[in-house]
Amino acid sequence: MEIYGDSKSGNCLKIRWVADHLGISYRWIELDILKGESRTPDFLAMNPAGQVPTVVLADGRPLAQSNAIILHLAEGSDLIPQDAYERAKMLEWMFWEQYSHEPYVAVARFQVKYLGKPASELEPRLVERGRAALQRLEDGLADTPFLVGERPTLADISLVAYTRMAEDGGFALADYPRAQAWIGRVEAAFNIA
Amino acid sequence: MEIYGDSKSGNCLKIRWVADHLGISYRWIELDILKGESRTPDFLAMNPAGQVPTVVLADGRPLAQSNAIILHLAEGSDLIPQDAYERAKMLEWMFWEQYSHEPYVAVARFQVKYLGKPASELEPRLVERGRAALQRLEDGLADTPFLVGERPTLADISLVAYTRMAEDGGFALADYPRAQAWIGRVEAAFNIA
Repeated sequence: MEIYGDSKSGNCLKIRWVADHLGISYRWIELDILKGESRTPDFLAMNPAGQVPTVVLADGRPLAQSNAIILHLAEGSDLIPQDAYERAKMLEWMFWEQYSHEPYVAVARFQVKYLGKPASELEPRLVERGRAALQRLEDGLADTPFLVGERPTLADISLVAYTRMAEDGGFALADYPRAQAWIGRVEAAFNIA
Repeated sequence: MEIYGDSKSGNCLKIRWVADHLGISYRWIELDILKGESRTPDFLAMNPAGQVPTVVLADGRPLAQSNAIILHLAEGSDLIPQDAYERAKMLEWMFWEQYSHEPYVAVARFQVKYLGKPASELEPRLVERGRAALQRLEDGLADTPFLVGERPTLADISLVAYTRMAEDGGFALADYPRAQAWIGRVEAAFNIA
């Protein structure tokens, strides 16, 4: 498998972590999205949406969307619960991540860390929604060590990607102590440095 | 099953269409999101994210996120391809829908139709990204009648929800003739009026 990714992107790192955990071999092809390297004609032929990560599977077929890729790679593994309801809750968290967490927590980080905007000048709505997402995560960890029960699943991989980098965007993880402890557990479970 | 939904919301209608198609019986509980009815303490106890649709399954357990709900309801049905790669492509479209289509196509519609903003005053970035999403869909239908091959899948349900309403947000569907014809096919396949 080939992974076309930008190491700055949490969405791309999800693929690396899952592949490493499952012992899937791959070649990582580093692209710099800030330099437009996911918008070249060659890349667009592979993924017309022009987004990383994009993988080329062992049989040569491309696949995009970080959460779709990790769901495909992890099929049949212990990263996806056997129980139908737990599997559905995992998917609930993963769709929520892309809709209600990444667009705020990751975008704030991108603007501060890569575009050089002071955190104090972020759009108030972005900060408010980022905080709401982190609080939702905090509340979701009230009863269990991982998002879907006692063991790590793809929901944890998906959500840890940008949560662990939230301080880059000016969010204070100390305000979310359960989420902070959970980050450590997920990093340990997946050998994330 | 109970579906807590707002009939104005394409995300909510997805659940109704899939349940109807699969012959799953349900009670529809209409909420008005404009009146804050998804933010009451009772609703937040069921879904702390305060989002519709939320369903309460036959066993009393809640589930949120439209695409996670339809994936759960349709498990084992012909709406999910048997082939692993096709299944992954279906998920790719569904995650893309929530990240790159709904936030523009649905949000433009919401602002024009429900908040009364003239389409000409929409934020240019919103319009540009909405058009890019519709063009991506148009390109994705170049070779097959449905998004993942010859038969309708959950990817079509997920993407038709707001594409069929795109003109409410000022987008011209005539600019996307393949997508326009596809809307008709998906509506026919699922008896969507």
